[in-house]
Amino acid sequence: MSTHGTEAPRPIRIALLGCGTVGGEVVRLLTEQAGELAARVGAPLELAGIAVRRPDKHPELPPQLLTPDPAKLIESDADVVVELIGGIEPVRDWLLAALHKGKSVVTANKALLAECSGELSEAADSSGADLYFEAAVAGAIPLLRPLRESLAGDRITRVMGIVNGTTNYILSAMDSTGAGYAETLDEASRLGYAEADPTADVDGYDAASKAAILASLAFHSRVTVADVHREGIAGVSSSDILAAQKIGRVVKLLAICERVTAEEGAESVSARVHPVMIPRAHQLAGVGGAFNAVYVEADAAGELMFYGQGAGGAPTASAVLGDLVTVARNRVLAGRGPRESAHAALPIRPMGQTPTRYHISLDVADRAGVLAQVAQVFAVHDVSIAAVRQRDRLSTASLVIVTHSAPDSALQSTVDEISRLDVVREVVSVMRVEGEDS
Amino acid sequence: MSTHGTEAPRPIRIALLGCGTVGGEVVRLLTEQAGELAARVGAPLELAGIAVRRPDKHPELPPQLLTPDPAKLIESDADVVVELIGGIEPVRDWLLAALHKGKSVVTANKALLAECSGELSEAADSSGADLYFEAAVAGAIPLLRPLRESLAGDRITRVMGIVNGTTNYILSAMDSTGAGYAETLDEASRLGYAEADPTADVDGYDAASKAAILASLAFHSRVTVADVHREGIAGVSSSDILAAQKIGRVVKLLAICERVTAEEGAESVSARVHPVMIPRAHQLAGVGGAFNAVYVEADAAGELMFYGQGAGGAPTASAVLGDLVTVARNRVLAGRGPRESAHAALPIRPMGQTPTRYHISLDVADRAGVLAQVAQVFAVHDVSIAAVRQRDRLSTASLVIVTHSAPDSALQSTVDEISRLDVVREVVSVMRVEGEDS
Repeated sequence: MSTHGTEAPRPIRIALLGCGTVGGEVVRLLTEQAGELAARVGAPLELAGIAVRRPDKHPELPPQLLTPDPAKLIESDADVVVELIGGIEPVRDWLLAALHKGKSVVTANKALLAECSGELSEAADSSGADLYFEAAVAGAIPLLRPLRESLAGDRITRVMGIVNGTTNYILSAMDSTGAGYAETLDEASRLGYAEADPTADVDGYDAASKAAILASLAFHSRVTVADVHREGIAGVSSSDILAAQKIGRVVKLLAICERVTAEEGAESVSARVHPVMIPRAHQLAGVGGAFNAVYVEADAAGELMFYGQGAGGAPTASAVLGDLVTVARNRVLAGRGPRESAHAALPIRPMGQTPTRYHISLDVADRAGVLAQVAQVFAVHDVSIAAVRQRDRLSTASLVIVTHSAPDSALQSTVDEISRLDVVREVVSVMRVEGEDS
Repeated sequence: MSTHGTEAPRPIRIALLGCGTVGGEVVRLLTEQAGELAARVGAPLELAGIAVRRPDKHPELPPQLLTPDPAKLIESDADVVVELIGGIEPVRDWLLAALHKGKSVVTANKALLAECSGELSEAADSSGADLYFEAAVAGAIPLLRPLRESLAGDRITRVMGIVNGTTNYILSAMDSTGAGYAETLDEASRLGYAEADPTADVDGYDAASKAAILASLAFHSRVTVADVHREGIAGVSSSDILAAQKIGRVVKLLAICERVTAEEGAESVSARVHPVMIPRAHQLAGVGGAFNAVYVEADAAGELMFYGQGAGGAPTASAVLGDLVTVARNRVLAGRGPRESAHAALPIRPMGQTPTRYHISLDVADRAGVLAQVAQVFAVHDVSIAAVRQRDRLSTASLVIVTHSAPDSALQSTVDEISRLDVVREVVSVMRVEGEDS
């Protein structure tokens, strides 16, 4: 279908499900930039309807477009469904129905994608519809399209990033003020950087959903949120922050997705979210406040970094609009975007078998032979020590150890056994480390 | 056309024009990752032929694929032409012929695109072929696809970046050693960071081509290299580097593409390449050696940064392969990527009318009233001074001025007139500045 004919092109009709902060921005941009967007798409973009829970609460929106019933819009003649409601049910059923009907879907729903992207992709494939979700990970940062398309000819080995702004804000604040976790969380809530119920952020659920989406795309495999090892930041103490500072590092909550190659050559995927000490010179260390940044390593491309705003109405709307222009263009040109690429189907590597490195800071008895005893525990568990620092008698944390890479379960067992040694008065801080130079 | 049928999909046949460092990597990746790539595309990728000047010099390549005649491959049954020869003629004619025949084109040829992308795009449109060129700007960094697609629903206001590794290496070295330009260039050549003939890099031609491509995509307008104001780094002295250090800045060669809005609301595009002093805290300041990084500012997305390797065989091949997978997928799905988007057709703003800010470091006579005289010249040219620092009598450069934004021609005239003042013994350094905090 060409748009260069003499007849005016048919508008692309859009059903918008949900109209909160992001949806409001999407409507604003669709309206304000209507001419520009029509030129870029090759046809006007037209709102077919907007589903909101309480139409009477939206005097700013055209009343004839409003409906409290999303299912009605799925049944309508809309070409594209933009979903900004969130959560799994009943959204899952609506989007499956839309895709089966051949409507393309643009969604920012990370929880849904991290649980059912396979099912959604199959529905899209069955009818030839598009499924795009750039806004689901790292807000405005163009990250998924590069992973899905720009790096499609390369072999990605690692995706590691700061993908949750709330936890990054809290950890940055703890690092600069020295305050504890609970106090800093309170302050963040007061300032609006944390939700009233911050569980999804601080316990790492949000980041884990994003890790599942990133790992699926990077490794051409289906990875769901259940496959992601998850630890939040509630256990990060000011002792941890201080211990990190003492070795020139900073604590960040990272989503880490890796292609792990076993000795016999078999590949698997490790996806995890947990606090990590990274060197202060690392580019991710400088990412402060509510910003997001993601590192990607690929065989041919080498190291790449993507940086930008990870949340907020306008930035998220930018990502939604980008997807909307793409799927609308595909309609006009009778084309299709890339389908799900899950052909590699790599197995998930359990956290216990994932190679990690630990930092361990101990308060130990002030007598000879302590290091020998501690080192013996590492040796028994086949964990190799990279660096040891012993402090003088006046210091409280008197033994700091950073290990080489070992299976996470061996490191956990080592820490357990060390904590039970008579000579160890207190385990001051235990945290995984990433990045060289420690 | 579905790939889910029972019959084996027809291979996508590729003609490779040029097989140097990048081409060799492309062949290697096509061979080593054949299975993976076929799964991602939905059909095998098959080399139809490789054009090299001297087939006998390539014992590493399958002899039956080699030809010294690119035109023969354009006439062949290849579906896709990958062009890695470079230069304008005769490559332009070959690619136009390929596109008119409906063959999709993947190219890394920045000079060609910066001069004839309109003509190439029209040829692609005439037959429905794809034209992709991610590798032409910033090597492996996925930058053009985000600009063309992810940000297609946003309004980009600025693209600013380090897009030439050779000049970045030289300026980084001058900053850390204090050595002069000529000496540092010699050292860079010796170490292989600069070509035997470094003109294209050090005089800014390479960066100007990239600026033209970036400005075209960002502002949906046709910008050619002739529209780009270009200054290289040959004029950067150790006095400039030192002057930058004294005000907490660093000198970088930047490509700057801006949407400029005049008072009456009319928009135009400014595209320029020249040395700039940026604050040391700026994220681009930390980009050292041969790395590339590009900042993008958009209305809704806010600030974004993309970072990675801007050159080299494998990184460039990664970008080529990504494009190749995309255009091959489009063949399999009978779809098409986005077409040229030049509908905005914004006019080019001449450099003289582009708002810039200057840093000026002067060695002035040691007597009262000098600042008044100098300030008077600024006032006459309607240039507003942002900051002045006067040094004591022992210092050589005794007056340092940073201006507010003003038309570049007014700043040039101001500098010209100041240099002729009796009280000015020497203009120690004049350079444009970007970024806040000076």
